[in-house]
Amino acid sequence: MVELKGDERIDYLLADRKRRIIQSPSVFAFSIDAVLLAEFTYLPLKKGKVLDLCTGNGVVPLFLSKRSKVQMVGVELQERIYDMAIRNVELNDLQDQINMIHGDLKDMPRQLGHSKYDLVTCNPPYFQTEDLDKRNSNEYLAIARHEIHCNLDEVLKACKMLVKPGGKVSLVHRPGRMADLIAIGRKYNLEPKRVQFVHPKKGKEANIVLIEFVRDGSADLKVIPPIVIHDEDGNYTGEVARILYGEEGSRQHGSHSKKL
Amino acid sequence: MVELKGDERIDYLLADRKRRIIQSPSVFAFSIDAVLLAEFTYLPLKKGKVLDLCTGNGVVPLFLSKRSKVQMVGVELQERIYDMAIRNVELNDLQDQINMIHGDLKDMPRQLGHSKYDLVTCNPPYFQTEDLDKRNSNEYLAIARHEIHCNLDEVLKACKMLVKPGGKVSLVHRPGRMADLIAIGRKYNLEPKRVQFVHPKKGKEANIVLIEFVRDGSADLKVIPPIVIHDEDGNYTGEVARILYGEEGSRQHGSHSKKL
Repeated sequence: MVELKGDERIDYLLADRKRRIIQSPSVFAFSIDAVLLAEFTYLPLKKGKVLDLCTGNGVVPLFLSKRSKVQMVGVELQERIYDMAIRNVELNDLQDQINMIHGDLKDMPRQLGHSKYDLVTCNPPYFQTEDLDKRNSNEYLAIARHEIHCNLDEVLKACKMLVKPGGKVSLVHRPGRMADLIAIGRKYNLEPKRVQFVHPKKGKEANIVLIEFVRDGSADLKVIPPIVIHDEDGNYTGEVARILYGEEGSRQHGSHSKKL
Repeated sequence: MVELKGDERIDYLLADRKRRIIQSPSVFAFSIDAVLLAEFTYLPLKKGKVLDLCTGNGVVPLFLSKRSKVQMVGVELQERIYDMAIRNVELNDLQDQINMIHGDLKDMPRQLGHSKYDLVTCNPPYFQTEDLDKRNSNEYLAIARHEIHCNLDEVLKACKMLVKPGGKVSLVHRPGRMADLIAIGRKYNLEPKRVQFVHPKKGKEANIVLIEFVRDGSADLKVIPPIVIHDEDGNYTGEVARILYGEEGSRQHGSHSKKL
């Protein structure tokens, strides 16, 4: 039995009726970005180690554990949210596969060792902090979404130090930062190899980018087919419904449409 | 009356029954890349100056002259192809608007002056030259397609020196070079602001990228909706048919489908 604190609730992990996840609207609830990152990323299936930085309530390792039995580590800076991640591992009896660490990603190379991971994933804070007025007044959400305790340079530097040579780093971010992702990635010998853009509707600009780097890789970027989230009527497209709810499609799950 | 040389032929400029263009399968014939670049790029409509590097037979200025009355200059390195460009300007009575120069883009900042153009367009050679075996044995085509006389760094350096501060640079290239485009662009203070990917079919990786830089711009890239060239049956999609043949669509123009 896992304890719920404050306004926390337990949701199913989308279509997965075996996995559940503790969420909180005022502390941390996962977004479609985490789902898309887990779906997009390369993942070692039998051998290897995976590290998820900025893990939040552990959503990305929870999703990845459906696809792979390899060992996973999640790192979360905020103790209150780390505490949710720990309970999420227990709630799903995944203590043997997923280990959660409370700490700063900038300290992880020293703490975990250099060049140990086959894959590093990260759903980092997106927003630059120049404009303080636009910051979320909720401290938990502000730290998760704004570059308050780590910026993109620090994230990619940590990823580079933690991933093995030839290993992969997968991030989700905003297309507006695409040039930064590529330029800073190259500064740390992370070469972008696979990119996918996500458009909210057909005919609209992309609002999410998924990007996979290879440490010490050569230049040869693949831009795979884009994802479109909503159809003309505002329902999830078939592709997204399959990602979110499995093969059954969106119509049977209309009541979930507003969750993400 | 314009003279035709060797295996040259005169085509209509796609849907435009007023503009015609001299082409040659063994020297230079334009591809869909040039059409998409002309369609994609920003263009000053009333005031300003446009420069097209690697102009070939002048196809991009010919297309742009449909949309704008501003002065345009094309630069072509290969004398035989420059000679086609000159005759294409004459063939369309555009001598008052388009000026062609025979020369090397690397010499243009000195020859034309620094920071003079509101827009620089370029459809440069795409292929790196390491693999000599893969080079086209036709010298005209090899120089147009491979980085024999200019590489991407030299192209972007020339663009930067020729465009005004705040002016735009539009290129068409291969997605595999996307990271180079961004990293080298930034080296020359060309910030990518707008990108469009072109996929040969739905569900296939992009094979063309259109990218617009702003000299001295700030980081904020927009990824506009992608273009899909062919539908499931191998016909041009409605969007591409409109670009190629105007509003009438592809069905009425099936006989042109193989041209590009």
